Order: sequence, then C-alpha cells, then structure tokens
Amino acid sequence: MANITKKVSWSSRADESGATGEGTPLLNGSGQPRYCRQLSGGSIFQVGRLSTVDLEEEISAEEDSLRGRLKEIPHNEKLLSLKFESLDYDNIENQLFLEEERRMSYMGFRCLEISRWVVCGLIGFLTGLIACFIDIVVEELAGIKYRVVKENIEKFTEVGGLSISLILWVVLNSIFVMVGAIIVACFEPIAAGSGIPQIKCYLNGVKIPRVVRLKTLVVKVAGVICSVVGGLAVGKEGPMIHSGAVVAAGVSQGRSTSLKKDFKMFEYFRRDTEKRDFVSAGAAAGVSAAFGAPVGGVLFSLEEGASFWNQMLTWRIFFASMISTFTLNFFLSIYHKNAGDLSNPGLINFGRFESDSVAYNLYEIPLFIIMGAIGGLLGALFNKLNYWLTIFRISYVHRPGLQVMEAMLVAAVTATVSFTMIYFSDDCQPLGPDHTEEIKCNCTVTFCFSLSQLFCADGEYNSMATTFFNTPERSVRSLFHNQPGTYNPLTLGLFTVTYFFLACWTYGLTVSAGVFIPSLLIGAAWGRLFGILLASITIWTDSGKYALIGAAAQLGGIVRMTLSLTVIMVEATGNVTYGLPIMLVLMTAKIVGDYFVEGLYDIHIKLQSVPFLHWDAPATSHWLTAREVMSSPVTCLNRIEKVGTIVDILSNTSTNHNGFPVVIQGPSKLCGLILRSQLIVLLKHKVFVELARSRLTLRKLQLKDFRDAYPRFPPIQSIHVSQDERECMMDLTEFMNATPYTVPQDTSLPRVFKLFRALGLRHLVVVDDENRVVGLVTRKDLARYHLGKHGLEELQLAQT
Amino acid sequence: MANITKKVSWSSRADESGATGEGTPLLNGSGQPRYCRQLSGGSIFQVGRLSTVDLEEEISAEEDSLRGRLKEIPHNEKLLSLKFESLDYDNIENQLFLEEERRMSYMGFRCLEISRWVVCGLIGFLTGLIACFIDIVVEELAGIKYRVVKENIEKFTEVGGLSISLILWVVLNSIFVMVGAIIVACFEPIAAGSGIPQIKCYLNGVKIPRVVRLKTLVVKVAGVICSVVGGLAVGKEGPMIHSGAVVAAGVSQGRSTSLKKDFKMFEYFRRDTEKRDFVSAGAAAGVSAAFGAPVGGVLFSLEEGASFWNQMLTWRIFFASMISTFTLNFFLSIYHKNAGDLSNPGLINFGRFESDSVAYNLYEIPLFIIMGAIGGLLGALFNKLNYWLTIFRISYVHRPGLQVMEAMLVAAVTATVSFTMIYFSDDCQPLGPDHTEEIKCNCTVTFCFSLSQLFCADGEYNSMATTFFNTPERSVRSLFHNQPGTYNPLTLGLFTVTYFFLACWTYGLTVSAGVFIPSLLIGAAWGRLFGILLASITIWTDSGKYALIGAAAQLGGIVRMTLSLTVIMVEATGNVTYGLPIMLVLMTAKIVGDYFVEGLYDIHIKLQSVPFLHWDAPATSHWLTAREVMSSPVTCLNRIEKVGTIVDILSNTSTNHNGFPVVIQGPSKLCGLILRSQLIVLLKHKVFVELARSRLTLRKLQLKDFRDAYPRFPPIQSIHVSQDERECMMDLTEFMNATPYTVPQDTSLPRVFKLFRALGLRHLVVVDDENRVVGLVTRKDLARYHLGKHGLEELQLAQT
Repeated sequence: MANITKKVSWSSRADESGATGEGTPLLNGSGQPRYCRQLSGGSIFQVGRLSTVDLEEEISAEEDSLRGRLKEIPHNEKLLSLKFESLDYDNIENQLFLEEERRMSYMGFRCLEISRWVVCGLIGFLTGLIACFIDIVVEELAGIKYRVVKENIEKFTEVGGLSISLILWVVLNSIFVMVGAIIVACFEPIAAGSGIPQIKCYLNGVKIPRVVRLKTLVVKVAGVICSVVGGLAVGKEGPMIHSGAVVAAGVSQGRSTSLKKDFKMFEYFRRDTEKRDFVSAGAAAGVSAAFGAPVGGVLFSLEEGASFWNQMLTWRIFFASMISTFTLNFFLSIYHKNAGDLSNPGLINFGRFESDSVAYNLYEIPLFIIMGAIGGLLGALFNKLNYWLTIFRISYVHRPGLQVMEAMLVAAVTATVSFTMIYFSDDCQPLGPDHTEEIKCNCTVTFCFSLSQLFCADGEYNSMATTFFNTPERSVRSLFHNQPGTYNPLTLGLFTVTYFFLACWTYGLTVSAGVFIPSLLIGAAWGRLFGILLASITIWTDSGKYALIGAAAQLGGIVRMTLSLTVIMVEATGNVTYGLPIMLVLMTAKIVGDYFVEGLYDIHIKLQSVPFLHWDAPATSHWLTAREVMSSPVTCLNRIEKVGTIVDILSNTSTNHNGFPVVIQGPSKLCGLILRSQLIVLLKHKVFVELARSRLTLRKLQLKDFRDAYPRFPPIQSIHVSQDERECMMDLTEFMNATPYTVPQDTSLPRVFKLFRALGLRHLVVVDDENRVVGLVTRKDLARYHLGKHGLEELQLAQT
Repeated sequence: MANITKKVSWSSRADESGATGEGTPLLNGSGQPRYCRQLSGGSIFQVGRLSTVDLEEEISAEEDSLRGRLKEIPHNEKLLSLKFESLDYDNIENQLFLEEERRMSYMGFRCLEISRWVVCGLIGFLTGLIACFIDIVVEELAGIKYRVVKENIEKFTEVGGLSISLILWVVLNSIFVMVGAIIVACFEPIAAGSGIPQIKCYLNGVKIPRVVRLKTLVVKVAGVICSVVGGLAVGKEGPMIHSGAVVAAGVSQGRSTSLKKDFKMFEYFRRDTEKRDFVSAGAAAGVSAAFGAPVGGVLFSLEEGASFWNQMLTWRIFFASMISTFTLNFFLSIYHKNAGDLSNPGLINFGRFESDSVAYNLYEIPLFIIMGAIGGLLGALFNKLNYWLTIFRISYVHRPGLQVMEAMLVAAVTATVSFTMIYFSDDCQPLGPDHTEEIKCNCTVTFCFSLSQLFCADGEYNSMATTFFNTPERSVRSLFHNQPGTYNPLTLGLFTVTYFFLACWTYGLTVSAGVFIPSLLIGAAWGRLFGILLASITIWTDSGKYALIGAAAQLGGIVRMTLSLTVIMVEATGNVTYGLPIMLVLMTAKIVGDYFVEGLYDIHIKLQSVPFLHWDAPATSHWLTAREVMSSPVTCLNRIEKVGTIVDILSNTSTNHNGFPVVIQGPSKLCGLILRSQLIVLLKHKVFVELARSRLTLRKLQLKDFRDAYPRFPPIQSIHVSQDERECMMDLTEFMNATPYTVPQDTSLPRVFKLFRALGLRHLVVVDDENRVVGLVTRKDLARYHLGKHGLEELQLAQT
C-alpha cells in the first residue's frame, strides 16, 4: 500500500462562504470500508472529511467581487483549492430528462441538430465580427497615436528637446494602459491575461466563476484594445479564444442572464454538457479568427478540452471556425476597401511563404532541432521568471490600485526603452526597392513606412524602429519576410533581450492580453539573428526562414502546445511545406522545456490551485485504489426525505457538498444521486409532500424549471422554508439520477481516473459489494495526485 | 415501453464452430430481473439466449480459408453477424497486471514512453518505404507496359490491323489483373478492396480475422501493384492505410507470429489497448504517405477510430505520419535522381495551386455548393449501384475462380473501352507551350507525352488519351492544372460517364485497390466540364479550380468523410486558401448524399453484418434500458471453480461465450470478470489446485504467459485435460478483472452506450441493487439498434 497520508490544510482566515474549518484530517488507508453513519432522524449521514467534496461557489454579489481578486490565490502551487466547483459533463438522466427524451420524435432530434448548426454558425459569425472590431479599432487608435507622436518627434528633432516627445509617448501609452487596467482590475478581474488558462479549465470541467459572462467579454474586448494600443508587449490573439468562448456560452443559451433577457430559444442547450460543446466551438472560432487557422482551432479545442470526440461535433466546431475566419476576412476586406479579396484570414498574418524560394534542405534539419532546443531553453527561462514574478505579484501586488499602477509602470518602461533604443540605434539602412516590396500590400504602408524613417536621413530607414515602433504583428511579418541585410545583428540581439524581459514582465499584469505574439516576435528576432550568423559562416542566406523556425521554437517553448500549435503555425504560414520542420522544432522545444519547468498556462493554472485533470492518472499511481482516494463517509439522502433535513444539510456551511447519493432506507443501498442545484430548485418550487400525503403540490415540476434556474442557482440562504414546511417530505425519485456510475472500492486509481475523465463526471460513487455507498470520488480527489520530483506526490487541499 | 421484440435468426446451415442453433428467442421486457440460475454442480449458470454473446472465432486453418469467402456473408444488411469478436480496448486490470504496474518505477514508465516513440518512428518509416516501393514498382511496370503497347500501336497504325494492338493491350492488362486477383482470392481474401472498412472496424473494436497479419500485407502490396498496372479504375492510396495498419500491428508486437520469430521486444505492448494505439498511428502514416497529408492522417485515425483522445498519443500519431511522408518524399527524390528535393510528399500529388492565380471569389460560393450537391447525388448513385452489385456478387460470384474471371473481365472491358474511346475521339488539340509547361517537372514526361499523341498528327495530342491512357494520378493532375482549352467538353462528358461506371464496377472486385483516386478523377472530370460550361456563359475561365472542387465533391459524395477529408484535400493541394470551399462542398455532398444512402465504406461494413458501434446511440433510444438490451441469464463462474466445469463451459459450442462474470458462491455477488482467452491460458498451463489443496502448481503464472499466447489463443479443443485434472479446482482470483464496470438495470441505452463506447469495453455487467449479476451487455447488444426509416429498428442476429 502506498505510503500516502492525507493532510487537509486550512487557510488561516475563514473563506467567504463561512466555512470555519472543523474538519479533521482522516486516514483512509485502513482497508476497512466505513459505511454511512446514520444520524439525526435517520436521514443525514454525517461527513467526516470536509476537504474533498465540491464546495458551493454560488455566492452573493458582494462576495463575488471579492472573489476575483488575486489576494485570494494561495501562494503555493502545492495546494489544491476547494473553491472551484466542477461542471456536469455527464447528463443527469433523471426521470424528467428521460421523459422529455422519450416524448421527442425523431424529427425533434433532427431539429435540435439543425439548431446546433445554426448556433455554431452564429458563434463563428459573432466571433469573427468581434475579431474584426478589435482589429479595426486597434488599427485606428494606434494610427492616431503614432501620427501624433511622429509629428511631435519631427517637430522637436528640428528644434531640439526630444525628451518632450518621449514624455508625450510615455503618457499616451500609459493612459491607454491605465484605462485597460482599471476596467479589468475594478470590473472584471477574470478578464485579465489571455484567458486561455481559464478556457482550458472550463473545457476540462472546472467551473471558473464568471468566466463566460457577457461582462467579461465586454471588459476583455475593451481591455485588449487598450493594452495593444498602449504599446505593451502583448498580442490580441490569445484573448480572442476567450472572447469566442464567451460568445458561444451566450449564444447557445438563447438568453442573457446579465441583461435579464430570455429569447426562449435553445432551452434544450441549458446544461453543462451542451454548453461545453458550444464553448469548444467558440474557442476554436477564436483561434481561427486569431490566426486564420480553422483546423488549428478545432485541434486546439480538442487538445485542450476534450476527452470527448464525436464526428458530428468536430465537424460543427470546424464549421464555426470556418465561418469565423471567413467573417473576419470578409469584413476586413471591406474595411481595406478591397471587398471580396480574402487575404486576411486571421488577426495575425504571417505573409506569404513561397515554398520555392524558401524550401528547406535535409541538412538543415539538425539546425532546426538546435533552434528548437534553444527555444525550449528560452521558453523555460521565460516561464520560470514569470513564475517568480507571479508569486511576487500574489504576495504584494494584490490591490486594484497597485495593479493599475504596475500596468502603467510597465507601459511607461516599455515606451521609454523602445524610444531610447531607437534613438541610440545607429542602424540606418539604405532604403532599397527590396524593402518596399514586402509591405506593398500593407494597408497603412505610408504611415508605417514613414515612421521607420525616424532619426535617419532621407532614403534610409531605422531598422530598430521597424521592430519596436510598430504593431507586433507587423514586426513579426517584417522579420519573416524582409530581405537579407535589412537588420543588423546587434539590433536584433538587443531587441531580443529587451523584448524578452518586457514580455515576461507584461504577462500576468492586470490587463487583457495574450502571449502568443510577443513569443513569436522574440523567437522571430533571435531566429533571424541565428540565420544571419549562419549566413556569415556558410552560404545560406535566407534568414526569413530561420525567423519562422525561431518563432515556432520560442512559442513552443513557452506554451508547450503540440499538434494544435503545429497546425496553427502551418495554417498561418499558408504553406504545408513547413510541416515537418515546425513539428520537429515544437517537439524539441517541448521536450527541452518540460525538463525544466511546465508550460506557461499550466504554471498559471497551478498557481491558481485549480483541480485540473490531466490526460491520465500519474504513471505510478496503480498503488492507490478508490478506497484510499475517495472522500468518506458521505452525506446521503433518503429517497423520500424530510425537507428540514435537506435544508439543514444544504445550509451546513462547513460541508457545502454539491452531490448527494440517494439511498434506500434500511440497508442503505445506493439508488440515485442528486445535486445541490436540483435540491435548491425543488425547495424553491416547494415540491413537498405532507407526511399524510394529503397535500400534493399543485404543479408538477418540469425540466424547464431547472433550465430556467441554470446556471445561476440561488444560494440556500435565499430560500425561505417555514417551520411547517420543514416537517413535510420531499420525494426525490423523479429528480435524482437513478443510475449514477459506480466503482467498487478496489478499483485502481488509473481506472477510476479513466472513467471519470472519459465521461466527464462530477461525482463518482464508490460502493461495496452489497451496493452500499462507502465513498464519493470528486475531481479534487483525483487532481490531488501528481508526479513530482520524488515520485507520486499529493497536493494539499485548501479552502482558498 | 418500446414495442421491440427480439428475434434470433439462424442461418440454415450450421456454422463452422458447430453451433446448432438451439437457442430460443427470449423476451426480456417483463421488468423482472432473472438471476443466474445455478445448474450442474452449483457452478454453471445456464445460458438462455445464445445470440448476443461474443462468439469464439479462433478457428483452425482449414476453417480459416473457408471463412474469408464471400459466400458466407449474409445477403441482408438487416442482420448482425455473431461471428465477429470484440477487442479489449479496456485494460484487464487483474492482480497480475496491477502487480506489474506497481513494480515498475517511474523510469520504467519513461522507458516505455520512449519505446512507444521509437515504435511510431519505425511505423512511419516502414510505411513510407512500402509506399515508395509500390510507387516505384508501379511506375516501372506501367512504363514497360505502355512502351510495349505504344510500339505495337505505332507499328500497326502504319500497316493497319489495330485490333491486334487492342488485343495485346487487353491481354497485358488482364494478365496483371489475373495475377492480382488470384493472390487475393486464393491466399488472402481479406486483402481485397481498399481495406479502409476493415481498419475502421478494427479501430472501432471489432476483431476482423487476419486483418493485420503479415500475409495480408504481402498480398495487399502485390495485389495493388497488379491492379494498378493492370489499368483498372483504381488507386493505390486506399490500400496504403491498410498497409500502414498492418505494419503498425507487426512492429509494435516485436515479433511475427506468421514467421514464428520473437524478438523479445515490446512485450508490454502485447494487448489490444496498446496495439490499437499503434494501429491508429499506422493508419495515419498510411494516409500521410498516400496523400502527403500528415495532419489529415491524424484526423482520419481519430475520426474513424477514436473514442479515445490523448495529447501524447495524438502527438505520437502525428510523428509517425510525419516520418512516413518524409521517408516517402526522401526516397522518391532519390529515385527521381533529385535527392533532397522534397516535392513528393505523397503518392498522389495534386500539383501546385498558386493562390494568386486561382483565388476564389465570394460569388462563386453558391456555385461550389451546387457542385457539392451534384457530388452528393452522383456519390449516392455510385454507392447505390455498388450496393446492388455487391449483393449480386455475394449471391453469384463467390467462388475464387469466378472472382478471378470477373476481375479479368473488368480489366478487359476497361482496356477496350479506353482504347475505343481514344480511337474514336477526334479531340486532337494543337500542342502549345502551355501544355508542356504543366508536365515539365514530371519524370516520365517523354514517355507519357508521346503516348498522348496517339492517333493524332505531329504537333497535336489526343486529349482523350491524356485522361485514359495514363495513370489515374497523372490524369487528375492534368485535369487540375492544364490550361483552359486543353479538353473539349464532349471528351470530358464521355470520360466522366464511362469512368463512373467502370469505377463503380471495379470497387468490390477481388483485387486490392482503392476508390479514392477514381472518385477524384470522376469528380475532376465533371468539375472541369462544369468549369468549361460556366466559362462559356460567363467570363470566368479557370476550369482547373472547378476540377478541384468537383473532385472534392465526388469523393465526399462517395466516402462521406468530414473533417479529415477536408484536411487531406487541403494538404494535398498544399494551399490553405481552399479550406472554406472544400469544407462547404464536402458538407453539402455529405448532407445530400446521406439523404439517399450511406457512405460506401459504411455500406460495405453493413453488408458484412459487422457489429459496428457508431458515435452515439440512436437518438430515439431512451426508451430502452439495460434490462431490455442485455443478454440474460449469464454463464457465471465461481471464484474457485472446478476445472471440469470450466472445460465444459468453454467446450460448449452452442454458447461459445467469451467473457464470464465471476461471482461469490452463495449470494452470487459479482466479484470479477474473466475472459475465455485467460481461462484457456490457465488451462494450458494447468494452474490447478487439488481439492485438498495439497498439490499446488509449481510455477506461478505470469503476465508474460498471457502475452506470449496473445493474440492467437489456442481453441479449447486443443487442450487436453485428463479426468483427474477435471476434478481439480482453479482459483481465478488472481487472474480475473476484479473491478469490472457495471451498470444498474434501469440505465438507459444511451447511457450504457456512452460508457461502453467511451471506455472501449467488451463486456459490461448489468447488476441489480444487491450487486448480483443479472445480465451482460456486449457489442452486439448495442450495435443491434439503429435508426431506420420507421424509427428505431432492431437488427437480427445471425450466426454467419
């Protein structure tokens, strides 16, 4: 038997829901199953171990605003937070549900299927529109900003006093960033960052509060515009994934809880299972709009989210992705006054790689692998630095005011560094016909082009300015495509180093922003440098190709995605020739990087102590069985239960369970499973039976009542139950899931894990060989085990 | 309760394993669970319903050769054959397995992971080599054949007597096809066709006898060479998928049972779960080599096979795919004396589509959708015709001799029709510089080019000849890329019609051949025709683009694949611009086609009565519960069972069960599940305990013993058990899976289906609320229900 003991760690202060931490740690490895102990009127089974049962997170509005602040994140990635609920990715098949399904004709199912397609089309369309909106607003605002600054610089270059230009630039950037940081920090902290970790968690089955609300979307979009225009080292691509997911969650429900508007549409989709599928489609549409990579989007959703795979679902996700990139493309073509020319499939456009000119040779493959290793190393460094920074932020920068100030500081430093580097750079290159060629097709050529002339003579341009004083997307493209000789090595080296640290500092700020583009930019810069150095010792001269490989390596080293990233990169280059090198590079970067530290998103997920379930149980966990893993004893309910008892159980803030096995009184055989949310709805609608069975409820509760309450079920405190009503009984037969999945006590952890993960469960009942309830396995019980440096380790559970 | 009764249909003659059909149909809908009845010495639980339990299919060699012949395929797609076993895609977690896993250190798991990568690399490499071999041999042999014929034609064109040339051509083709048909019909009938339906079934969890054996691979490769060189309307791409799968199954086991060679490597992978993963990689590598589409390959494997999805597995599959296309590319570049020029990623090469020249416009999208609908219609027609033809073949063409003759007839007709059409075609086009340009890069230009001059004056070429008298791959490329005006509409129309019927006749012949390329060719022909007609009424002139869309539409209409086909097409064109149109076209083709008839592969799977599990249970099947679906009563074993009893049960040819719940005597509580194959190994090694427990076995049985016997476990008849031994006992505790998955009786069919499908189960035990065994659900019990024209229908079960 494995030598693992369970410790329950309680945070020093009581959490918002009022738990006071009376739980005593229990050791379960004795091998003796403990049956539910019947207490208080023969109906409640007392809970001994509080720690591993889903905790209530539906909390009132004021608690809500507190919740999002960073100060509540524990400082230790060895903790697992109990505040995160799971989502029900397994249908709750109770009698009501089955009756509805049985009533439905084949045509009914066909109509549902068609409406799923319609919803996916809408998701794609709206996501594309949002991407388009962000792009255009950023373009316009950045245009205005750069024009103002450039005019100012030109004015002062002649009369002296460039420091005023610098101040102007710094102030402009800081104002934008300040606005962005304020809306995020004060209105919706969950909108900070790229949102990819949050969507990963959502698709994994963890309920992150407020992650798919309309308000989050609004703040996210406004925030990302501000941070990009504010000149931070960020991209607008990552947030698109989050935006797409919010759009999907909204559209698919046919109503907005925030706006209190119910269109009475798509009511069938108001449950976690269906919503999850649409959110996958939304995330895919987001990727698709961001990178013009519809297949990459589908793979992203599957890679991040899915233990599910279903041909029709995948096809629908792909449809949403396609519509999304197409919508973006179409509207951008109108904006660029070139309607119908579909050459902007994504927010980032790598430009055209013609395979003839830049085909790779066999003997270059070792070089690519070396670059992959460099990318892995640099990525690991980036992640490690960002990890320390995040720890620091959690400890010291947790007030909104401080957060806004930090964001402004970063904006100011970024602007100053760029300005200084452009100023002191003497890298003025002659303006040849080569250079113009590349940006010919670019819409804001004249503007961007004149900018790059800064501090240089006529007929020359400042290559540092083309990389710094430009949107990151355009800089990436220049690095990929500009002719050899455009950049000198010193410029590139300096740029790489400064941008690396700026980007690292920026990620994790309280602004909406992604890390994709900065990673690509850093990688493209050192990749091009690599290419130039190589050209100086060999005859190969195409440094653009090395910039692409470098970009892939750096991005792979930071985010550690695999197949989806390969496909995204291939689709963004528009050329399948690079498939093999990109794959090799990403693979090397991942292997090297994983040796040192996890991927950036995983680090942030861990720092939030989210009970995230990986693909498989840890390799060496066959030692453990359900008996050791489960929480026990379990609070069980009777099939016909006293209302007072139910209210007491639900109100018990020291347990806050979310799922209750239902048993037949007497032998306490398992006969079903009911959720807190269902009980709440039952209580709200007063579906009571008097003991004498003379007073029955007037109205039969329908599935619709549950759907109307979904997903924001009221807390138990808001439901008033009179003393008379407490004496009534409640018949749970119709509402409970009569056929919950069960496992015997001796089932090994990997087997439990597989069942749990493959079916997207929330509660798994452990029974003995008489079918009596002996325990309950929830997400935290499984997520707790992980492979550490010294073999299998167990995370501690914490209330925060 | 649904009004469904179960009928068991028995074929008129007794099946090979000797079942005589004493089973009486049972109605299970009474709602009363029937517990296992104890009979004969308190240990066997008699079986009442024979029909739905896995049947033994390991049979002796002579039965083996009978088995593959078509005459045994039932004539009715409303039947479900009982002859197909399931595979164990759920690990059998018995004590031995758990002990081994627990013994293994973390490093051990790392080594395993590394060897998985090595195996995948090998799979990719070997699959690429095989593709390369096929390509080169076909090229060489076809070259010789065309040269002989052309010389002959030139000789006789001058002196008259072209009929002799025709005869020569017909005879040459027929000889090749005869050889191909003979090896398939006589040595390995399973190698007929593309093998894609078989691989679909395998990945779905159905054990198709001999599908992944070395002999099958050899016959497949030789057969495909013969049929392609024989000028049939077939492609060599489909069979690559099967070949890749066989390679994977072989390499991953580290031994060849056929060659009786055991390398003592990869012993850990000798079970269905691991093998399945490698076969997925092999299939992906096959697709990748066939179309130069590594991502498409991965998606194909996932779409066809997977209820599983795992980041690392997918990544490994992708690795195998990449290595495969790379290997092919590399060796072909050497063959083409252009080493290092990686321009042949797949067997078929669509040629380069430059996006600038052939970008589509928005207003063309409705046209694409119309073409998709045409493709769907033509595809449905193709499938329906082929369905009738297959029915005819099953009834009348079931002897090897007849099959070979039919194949030769088709070869002769194909040759004659081509010859006649070239001869009577007066479509001689002037030979401009445009035309030469396209095939400039082609290796066999001079040869292929001079051919197309047939029957035309110098300086002209015969456009019918370029389409007919050519390998199909090259014809497809010409249709995509030749300049407008290359083909006249009549030629194309005639070609479409004749090739359509030829291809339809050819698919299902007893030769190894795929349907991908003929479909593409038909589609490209009518697509180009569509483009030409369009050009005559509008100003758009690029018919090559329409050829591509037509090809996609036709292929989609026939095979009905979704995401994977889109990606394969996009990768084969090498240009992501076409993503949206191809997706729309495939979607339309699928919707239109599905309205009439299923996809070609599904038709053939149904005609073989394979118990194939689709993605979900039929939509309207919530009526059914495990109680109605399960087989009951079940033959159960005791934990310590008499050897004689076990031998009797296994020898009972009228039941032939494969999985036996193990129960605790007395209350008959479920305590495990054991497979026939495990019992066979136990009997073979005589792991007996005498009743007095004085004689224990000398050697403790290890997992290795089971692995050595895998996958060809001997039949029970080959194991001799003496009368003394029959009185011994066998302790199953260590070998049974102690924690089988169970469901309660009231679980709805969709829920049972989801559990079964998601976990890749083979047996699912149905228990009552006391944990007593009441039934067993196997693959056939689930596959039996399908949505027909009149709602939910039930397939009949048949022994054949």
